[in-house]
Amino acid sequence: MLVQKYADMLNAKSVIREMAAFAAERGKEIGYENVFDYSLGNPSVPVPEKLREVMAKMVLEMDSVDVFGYSPTLGIPSVREKLAANMRKRFGVPYEGKHIFMTSGAAGALAHAFRCVAKEGDEILTFAPYFSEYGPYIDPIGAKLQVVPADTEKFQINFEAFEGMMNENVAAILINSPNNPSGSVYSKETIQRLADYLRQKEKEYGHEIYIITDEPYREILYGGVELPFIPAYYDNTLLCYSYSKSLSLPGGRIGYVAIGPACRDAELFINMCGQISRGIGHNCPTSLMQLAVAEVGDLTSDMAVYEKNMNLLYDELTALGFTCVKPGGTFYIFPKALEEDAKIFCEKAKKYDLILVPGDGFGCPGFFRMAYCIETEKVERSLGALRRFVETEYPNQNLK
Amino acid sequence: MLVQKYADMLNAKSVIREMAAFAAERGKEIGYENVFDYSLGNPSVPVPEKLREVMAKMVLEMDSVDVFGYSPTLGIPSVREKLAANMRKRFGVPYEGKHIFMTSGAAGALAHAFRCVAKEGDEILTFAPYFSEYGPYIDPIGAKLQVVPADTEKFQINFEAFEGMMNENVAAILINSPNNPSGSVYSKETIQRLADYLRQKEKEYGHEIYIITDEPYREILYGGVELPFIPAYYDNTLLCYSYSKSLSLPGGRIGYVAIGPACRDAELFINMCGQISRGIGHNCPTSLMQLAVAEVGDLTSDMAVYEKNMNLLYDELTALGFTCVKPGGTFYIFPKALEEDAKIFCEKAKKYDLILVPGDGFGCPGFFRMAYCIETEKVERSLGALRRFVETEYPNQNLK
Repeated sequence: MLVQKYADMLNAKSVIREMAAFAAERGKEIGYENVFDYSLGNPSVPVPEKLREVMAKMVLEMDSVDVFGYSPTLGIPSVREKLAANMRKRFGVPYEGKHIFMTSGAAGALAHAFRCVAKEGDEILTFAPYFSEYGPYIDPIGAKLQVVPADTEKFQINFEAFEGMMNENVAAILINSPNNPSGSVYSKETIQRLADYLRQKEKEYGHEIYIITDEPYREILYGGVELPFIPAYYDNTLLCYSYSKSLSLPGGRIGYVAIGPACRDAELFINMCGQISRGIGHNCPTSLMQLAVAEVGDLTSDMAVYEKNMNLLYDELTALGFTCVKPGGTFYIFPKALEEDAKIFCEKAKKYDLILVPGDGFGCPGFFRMAYCIETEKVERSLGALRRFVETEYPNQNLK
Repeated sequence: MLVQKYADMLNAKSVIREMAAFAAERGKEIGYENVFDYSLGNPSVPVPEKLREVMAKMVLEMDSVDVFGYSPTLGIPSVREKLAANMRKRFGVPYEGKHIFMTSGAAGALAHAFRCVAKEGDEILTFAPYFSEYGPYIDPIGAKLQVVPADTEKFQINFEAFEGMMNENVAAILINSPNNPSGSVYSKETIQRLADYLRQKEKEYGHEIYIITDEPYREILYGGVELPFIPAYYDNTLLCYSYSKSLSLPGGRIGYVAIGPACRDAELFINMCGQISRGIGHNCPTSLMQLAVAEVGDLTSDMAVYEKNMNLLYDELTALGFTCVKPGGTFYIFPKALEEDAKIFCEKAKKYDLILVPGDGFGCPGFFRMAYCIETEKVERSLGALRRFVETEYPNQNLK
């Protein structure tokens, strides 16, 4: 018989996917260019030309076994060395190749990181608003995802709520900065306070508490905002990275887990990842993608379009009287809805061909997400629809 | 704290990897070209030139989002349609796109197939000799892998032992033909008998019993041997395929699960795979690899070298008096060792720079595996070493 729990999961529909499906359907009626689809976080800017060139050259010229053959389970040694050298130079943390485990994207990285530190009965704490897939990612391990309510003022960390929820069963703290869906970047002060608090709790409980930091948006930062490098603040950090956003390469399925070099048993953790792989069918990411991202180094896609879109939206939302934390990065913005139930708010927006996602699934009801990884021209055209929506549906709104 | 079970797995060393490591070390002393390394099943023939061309063209010319963007979780729709059409035409089973789930290789395919049909407490039966990774693949699900002792005469199925082990807790039968490590191909008669027996047991137990067929060696067949297409014999079949061997593309991490179109809830199974993916960090295989394998259709690498190597080895092994089933495919041969303990036999062979793998790990003690996916020239040179090894260590052996 089929295993019922996976069949049952199909009934719990994803709001994001429902919104995207609605946008696609509506697009068939009025032309997709006329649907202001802010539902999906798919990078819209192309990969850098140099990445295409590097990859094509490898495909055509490299020895077949080197580029199409098996990668070792932990990743191709030269790739791991290159990435470690890059991180040493860039962040000043003494990574070596042995601290890097190559994965198929951030999802693959998180699947290994969670299994390294959390088992049945453990808790993993994360902070709202949070990426809604964390639940299904953690569920099969038998650990429990606990969500700390949001700091809705600044989308930093609600320390009061956090400290109230902290307990001995917490194996790891899962953070995501720059954050999906809020676009916020945790400040140096936030990270320092988190690190100090966790070190104190580690002593108190007599066991490690790991930070798992999910950083696919690391390279998408706006207006000189600085992103504190977590492993420089806290030794027991498992950094999960993906090239999906920085190189517009989500279909390449390439990322890594980097374990803090000063973490106890650091190298053992990486070898454990190789064992975890056997049980989840991961094995290793594509050899070609490993070689290609190592070759292009710090290169990224042209992110300027995301910042331009963000500024257009932020200015208009503010002018329309929305309460909204200005994003420090990512390609998301997360304003407060104009009525208590963001689901109703987003439902009404559909009439104006505005496809928004309510914050409930991100653990933050009353807010909504706009993923502005779309053409700037479309963002510009959407502003009129946004204004009409607010003026018509919320006539008492205090427009600025 | 780290999760101890994965740390403990590191102590259970893989004999294959130990042998390969020994070969690499010995290669540093005498030159790797002088080590007759039959340890690893890594394809040695290059990918077809056409695959390189197709891939390079996609990398350079396709729209960035189409070739580097996210694939839907179930796979790229056009790819699924193309593969289904190909299977309809080739095998006469009415697959449609909705019956195909794209995966990162056979390991990814098996990870999904097992989770579709087996849960904690269930049994999965397989037949010795079997691929030694099946144990770690199944272990995290909580199901139990039960190994039916080998039919050491012909490496077909030992039905007497199988029927004795069959019981109501068996959720699936896992088969691998052409077989690693024996190289044997299950005959039409074997498959027909298996299918008939399982249908009878399904009625008796009142629940489905699935066949999970692991077929990475499907395209490597010798001397006109015919491979029965399992889903044509048995509806409740989950076929797990990988392009690792047929296109020499193990580093591409690309394969699929195909569910029998006549299986009850066939489409539901495929949708369940999408849910399973979320919990194991799979998501989807690389978009580029999906598109490339669909484009090249039935193309394979040049497999002639494997058959040539097999014949060289088979003739010499037979002449040296080994008991040996002639392989019908793969790039493995699995002769009987010349003493009871194959581990001791393989240890002695090292002195002659012959790297062989004892059959114990494959559930078949007393035999040994040779993976002859190496240059023919090296196979030819190894025959002298093989003869010296036998003449010196087993002087009473009845040479032909």
